[in-house]
Amino acid sequence: MEEVALAVDEIWLVVAAVLVMFMQAGFALVEAGFTQAKHAGNIIMKNFMDFSVGAIVYWAVGFGLAYGGSTLGGFIAFGDGFFLNDNGLASTWFFQVVFAATAATIISGAIAGRVKFSSYLVYTPFITGLIYPIVTHWVWGGGWLSELGFFDFAGSGVVHMLGGAAALAGVLVVGPRLGKYSAEGKPLPLPGHSLTLGALGVFILWFGWYGFNAGSTLAAVGQDIASPAVTTTLAAAAGSVGAMMVAWIVTGKPDVGYTINGVLAGLVGITAGTASIGFGLAIVTGFVAGVIMVGSVMLLERRGIDDPVGAISVHGTAGLWGVIAVALFSGDAALLPQLIGAGAILIWAFGTSYLVFRFIDLTIGMRVTAEEELTGLDRSEHGSNAYPEFVFQHEVIDLRAALPLAVDPEVARSA
Amino acid sequence: MEEVALAVDEIWLVVAAVLVMFMQAGFALVEAGFTQAKHAGNIIMKNFMDFSVGAIVYWAVGFGLAYGGSTLGGFIAFGDGFFLNDNGLASTWFFQVVFAATAATIISGAIAGRVKFSSYLVYTPFITGLIYPIVTHWVWGGGWLSELGFFDFAGSGVVHMLGGAAALAGVLVVGPRLGKYSAEGKPLPLPGHSLTLGALGVFILWFGWYGFNAGSTLAAVGQDIASPAVTTTLAAAAGSVGAMMVAWIVTGKPDVGYTINGVLAGLVGITAGTASIGFGLAIVTGFVAGVIMVGSVMLLERRGIDDPVGAISVHGTAGLWGVIAVALFSGDAALLPQLIGAGAILIWAFGTSYLVFRFIDLTIGMRVTAEEELTGLDRSEHGSNAYPEFVFQHEVIDLRAALPLAVDPEVARSA
Amino acid sequence: MEEVALAVDEIWLVVAAVLVMFMQAGFALVEAGFTQAKHAGNIIMKNFMDFSVGAIVYWAVGFGLAYGGSTLGGFIAFGDGFFLNDNGLASTWFFQVVFAATAATIISGAIAGRVKFSSYLVYTPFITGLIYPIVTHWVWGGGWLSELGFFDFAGSGVVHMLGGAAALAGVLVVGPRLGKYSAEGKPLPLPGHSLTLGALGVFILWFGWYGFNAGSTLAAVGQDIASPAVTTTLAAAAGSVGAMMVAWIVTGKPDVGYTINGVLAGLVGITAGTASIGFGLAIVTGFVAGVIMVGSVMLLERRGIDDPVGAISVHGTAGLWGVIAVALFSGDAALLPQLIGAGAILIWAFGTSYLVFRFIDLTIGMRVTAEEELTGLDRSEHGSNAYPEFVFQHEVIDLRAALPLAVDPEVARSA
Repeated sequence: MEEVALAVDEIWLVVAAVLVMFMQAGFALVEAGFTQAKHAGNIIMKNFMDFSVGAIVYWAVGFGLAYGGSTLGGFIAFGDGFFLNDNGLASTWFFQVVFAATAATIISGAIAGRVKFSSYLVYTPFITGLIYPIVTHWVWGGGWLSELGFFDFAGSGVVHMLGGAAALAGVLVVGPRLGKYSAEGKPLPLPGHSLTLGALGVFILWFGWYGFNAGSTLAAVGQDIASPAVTTTLAAAAGSVGAMMVAWIVTGKPDVGYTINGVLAGLVGITAGTASIGFGLAIVTGFVAGVIMVGSVMLLERRGIDDPVGAISVHGTAGLWGVIAVALFSGDAALLPQLIGAGAILIWAFGTSYLVFRFIDLTIGMRVTAEEELTGLDRSEHGSNAYPEFVFQHEVIDLRAALPLAVDPEVARSA
Repeated sequence: MEEVALAVDEIWLVVAAVLVMFMQAGFALVEAGFTQAKHAGNIIMKNFMDFSVGAIVYWAVGFGLAYGGSTLGGFIAFGDGFFLNDNGLASTWFFQVVFAATAATIISGAIAGRVKFSSYLVYTPFITGLIYPIVTHWVWGGGWLSELGFFDFAGSGVVHMLGGAAALAGVLVVGPRLGKYSAEGKPLPLPGHSLTLGALGVFILWFGWYGFNAGSTLAAVGQDIASPAVTTTLAAAAGSVGAMMVAWIVTGKPDVGYTINGVLAGLVGITAGTASIGFGLAIVTGFVAGVIMVGSVMLLERRGIDDPVGAISVHGTAGLWGVIAVALFSGDAALLPQLIGAGAILIWAFGTSYLVFRFIDLTIGMRVTAEEELTGLDRSEHGSNAYPEFVFQHEVIDLRAALPLAVDPEVARSA
Repeated sequence: MEEVALAVDEIWLVVAAVLVMFMQAGFALVEAGFTQAKHAGNIIMKNFMDFSVGAIVYWAVGFGLAYGGSTLGGFIAFGDGFFLNDNGLASTWFFQVVFAATAATIISGAIAGRVKFSSYLVYTPFITGLIYPIVTHWVWGGGWLSELGFFDFAGSGVVHMLGGAAALAGVLVVGPRLGKYSAEGKPLPLPGHSLTLGALGVFILWFGWYGFNAGSTLAAVGQDIASPAVTTTLAAAAGSVGAMMVAWIVTGKPDVGYTINGVLAGLVGITAGTASIGFGLAIVTGFVAGVIMVGSVMLLERRGIDDPVGAISVHGTAGLWGVIAVALFSGDAALLPQLIGAGAILIWAFGTSYLVFRFIDLTIGMRVTAEEELTGLDRSEHGSNAYPEFVFQHEVIDLRAALPLAVDPEVARSA
């Protein structure tokens, strides 16, 4: 009996973790699809390294700093779990490592298209090995924020807002991409190279998010694992509707990019309260998340914050909303501890990340040269080419320039 | 003990529903891959809205109309389930909503490339909120068709044939795409822009279909959840072989599009009898489904029915076959109730959908202008561009036209 | 109680098998992405047929030859399981058939871009119906290798090395692609057409591999299903880091293709010892797998073995390492039986596959004509075109040739 119940809980946690792991593919596609083709291979590399380097670092130190058994004043754990060799902790470690990788990968998209690959490799172990584990100790490892009554069921704040804050630090250090702003500082469009890949990424993230949210019950026996799946569904749905409506009103068209980012904002927004908020209020939570995400994207872009995939808004802004929403819409959290917790996580994640990014920038440099950026990171950083057989618009410009007739299609046709 | 058994059943239903949810990504990719690049963003939007609007509508009214506890003459449910707020129904609702979204998304592909986005948004709540729920009440909610002995285990008829019939209504109202037929009425090829994305979509659908079919046991304890997985595998396999063979014989080549649609036809065909039909007969069921799907596609195309992705044939024709096959190949159903049920579902789904599409067409209009259609729905409806960096054939036509030498490659090479 | 435990085990096996089934999509994308666009439809077809024909053949004979109950000297099974009609074996069959399809699909990538589709269709039933089942009888069906003490938990040798050996036989028979080697025999780059699709394929494979490895417990009650998930994660992570580092040292850049193939090498390497090797040593196992895979790819390429996707090295070389690693790093296996088993599988898989490929070559011919190969298999074999709307580099060469000015961009710009 005991053995069967244990197996049931293990299946649930392992299957949920596998779903969350697949979110790495979703992030990679969203980031690659929403940015230029000449950086696609670099984005893939960063996403594989987030998880690869991250898993090894989280095995060595991250898990121990979060759940090591003993605590230094509720701030950092120590004791067990370093260089994990206890099979009894395997399912727990597996579920946690995919969360750590999620936090890490959020940064990748925000600083896409202008960062040295080697510098990124220096940064990424800090978030999976130190910055993120310490916050999980605060909230989920029995640390000071959990003592204070801060509540974040599946990580609107612990994972997503943290990732968004770190992403903001990164963007402030590296600055905008070349060509993102006119000489007068007006934002210019730098559209992504494949909406279909980006959309597939969003679907994969939605799919994996069921593991993220419903799996955060950490067990199935005696738990309600289905309600989080329902709130997750409804909030994602309302997030896309909300974002689409705002974009439609503001830009005059139901924009594809905003709408599918609205799904992600809805998901981020419900994550803290996925097991607490009622079904109807989950729709409100998701809808608001979608709306404020669009506002946040527009605001940041105008302020010179170049975040190619909207990661700061999708994860940071909607994550903050999620931490607040669970206090507004459920009895599981109170507003004051939520605000204190949100503030602490923001300061910690932004502050530590800013220090690391600045330090890297002052030593080996965060940013590639202008020439490397214009060439594209695939060729300059990796000697690769994501789409070597396809012809790109900038290549045909040469041809058109060589051909005066082609400038005027009417003349051309009559030629 | 009770609690463990409950957890086991909940895990099964939630995991199965998550797999079915992922089929939305599969539909989006099949539809986008099998149609032109200039509509890809619009197709993505329709697929996200199917599920997003659909989930909210199904929460508000659809679920209550299907499973509300009380019934009006076996035709429509009332009572509970509207604006669902009962956590005890969460897993049931979650499994049902992803089925509703599947029925809805079938229509999207059939009318791709010429429909106003706003008009689509008006139609889609009808299928998830009304047309589909009422049929599920008839068959799975204890309604008149279940009383009659109609049997459809996982929805060859309830979901797929229904979607196919609604798709046919849509195509009849909106008419064929510009350029699909010559002045003499001869069908012309309008090939899809990415076979790889389409094929990935089919693989995702196959993957998710295990949740669709094996999950329709609705529980795991005391159920045979593995046999449906086996019949699903064999029927899909036989469907692709059958479709490939017919296409090979008729067109002289093993066509990629027909073959991978054959997978889907095989899956649709086995769905009604996935838990009833033996393994060997599952191969026959899938094979026949693949064969008749190809015939149906060819016939409809010649009759002026422009269905860009073959949805009417894959879901409608193979779905009808599935409803019949379970009577022919198993003892769980008899032919007469199956035919009556199929007829009733076809008339209901086609009739109601036709009325809604006609009403929309007469008021705000179903179809975009010719200019918008030629420009592509991405630009005209969404202000988006799915692949802004890539060069397309029609753009190079201008260049070639401007360059008389280029017309003859031999001359060009010697230049 | 019994019934609940049974349901738990069934859920685990079915869910794991569904994950493994999805690896078919991963293989299709890796193969398509890593090869030229003009063969993408053909690769899709081969991947669907691997599984479709394979499932039917495995239903008819493969399963019976592997697990038929009786044995002919530990070499081949007979008795039950042919034309499977026993529902009690459904979950076992389902889990085994997706393994058989994995073994089969490995060959597809290695011989991509020059093989007749019909000849491929003749070969593929041999591996799923005969070559692979017999080896599984040896190792997992109680045959002579299991008697000898050969240990391969999830199939580094039984599935991957076997597939790699068969792939090598195929490549030796069909020879390199046109244009792969210069007149002096120097290997030339023939880069794949989409790194993003290839990378998505690798993520899908990683995702599905949790079913492959952790599912090989074959049950959940009383089993440790989480530790294999942890070793799988760490080995994949270390494999990508190892491959990246070697590629970086050797080529001067962190190459994308090598790195993501390193993930697969790490996964293949840990597969035999996924339940035996400790977490720290799993990192070593994966790292070594990534390193030797890169060496193997470079060596084979120089020796005139044209394997477009590196399948022989990823599955064959890393698979051999996996069979050895489980003896070096755990107490579950001894070196001598592992070496004997590896040798036996290599000789069997290579030998039988070589005979079949040679026989096909001597009768209907393995290879397409040079003209068909240059045109691309999509058009010549299937009458299809994977990307009909996009412009490819070779098409613009014509335009540039026709336009002397365009040769010199400086002149062109001043024109």
